[in-house]
Amino acid sequence: MTTRPGPRERLLDAARDLTYTQGVHVGVDAILKQANVARRSLYQHFGGKDGLIAEVLRADVGEARYRQVMDEAGDDPRRRVLAIFDELEKITTRPSFRGCRYTSAELALTDPAHPAHAEVRAYKDGLHQLFTTELTRHGHPDPSLGADQLLVLVDGALAHAVTRPDSHPALAARAMAELVLDRAPQP
Amino acid sequence: MTTRPGPRERLLDAARDLTYTQGVHVGVDAILKQANVARRSLYQHFGGKDGLIAEVLRADVGEARYRQVMDEAGDDPRRRVLAIFDELEKITTRPSFRGCRYTSAELALTDPAHPAHAEVRAYKDGLHQLFTTELTRHGHPDPSLGADQLLVLVDGALAHAVTRPDSHPALAARAMAELVLDRAPQP
Repeated sequence: MTTRPGPRERLLDAARDLTYTQGVHVGVDAILKQANVARRSLYQHFGGKDGLIAEVLRADVGEARYRQVMDEAGDDPRRRVLAIFDELEKITTRPSFRGCRYTSAELALTDPAHPAHAEVRAYKDGLHQLFTTELTRHGHPDPSLGADQLLVLVDGALAHAVTRPDSHPALAARAMAELVLDRAPQP
Repeated sequence: MTTRPGPRERLLDAARDLTYTQGVHVGVDAILKQANVARRSLYQHFGGKDGLIAEVLRADVGEARYRQVMDEAGDDPRRRVLAIFDELEKITTRPSFRGCRYTSAELALTDPAHPAHAEVRAYKDGLHQLFTTELTRHGHPDPSLGADQLLVLVDGALAHAVTRPDSHPALAARAMAELVLDRAPQP
């Protein structure tokens, strides 16, 4: 027996789905309808649509998914980093792929005061820390710079794949990630 | 003496400006107001807002600007390619920078039938050809793959800079572009 999710969870689910397929400018009414929730619940739980959008990004499983992919690849930092690009190749070649949720939100929300921007920043900073840790273990001469480079590759693969998926940008990025990793002193 | 631009040019100017600062979901009325043009002109010249958005992307000077930056860097293909990343560092650190116009449009227009998608694709394919030409001249062992890699770096620098400009992603991308170029057989 499963319990039906409450209004808060239903709002998050509907917003997660609709903002990905239709963009963050999707109407509030469409979200309320899909969630089958009254407008007052939106305000009670999130203070309004902006708060809901920010919470979708904060609560997203993106970083946890990166950790999971790395952990499934074992303990070797080089294999753990490259596993991310293998995963990106899978994600970016799915028919349902519509780009990176965080980049899309960041670009579409042109008001710098929108609360979603802080969530996008926190997410990217989290990934930077994740990569820095792996590159440090790998013996990279400049783990923070290397992590910046890996983030450019991740964002580049995700952004480019929306327009030219047939060029397999995640594989192109993977080959460059190998070059970044090979800057590490060899054992 | 300068001639005042006609309605077509005023519509393009207003749309170019407003879609960049406010996104492609900016209202038609705001575009008409800034262009100081009647609604019927929009339909006469572009068939509607979708046609205007597509024309802004088609007519954009992006690729010409890349060519110009390369030409100013001289004849050496390595220097010509790296000059692009020096230019990206300038662009992405300007306070007015709000991301790549093409990526933003591609992500925001979730209707696959929107005419803008073909323009974005044509633009990226044009850049791919531009880079392929330089890498061929440079003696790169796989110019088409190398061009795919450079495009991932360009899109990655532009996408990542919106969120973490202080990490100077264009410089991180430049260092990787050097690694891509160094795959070429040395003379």
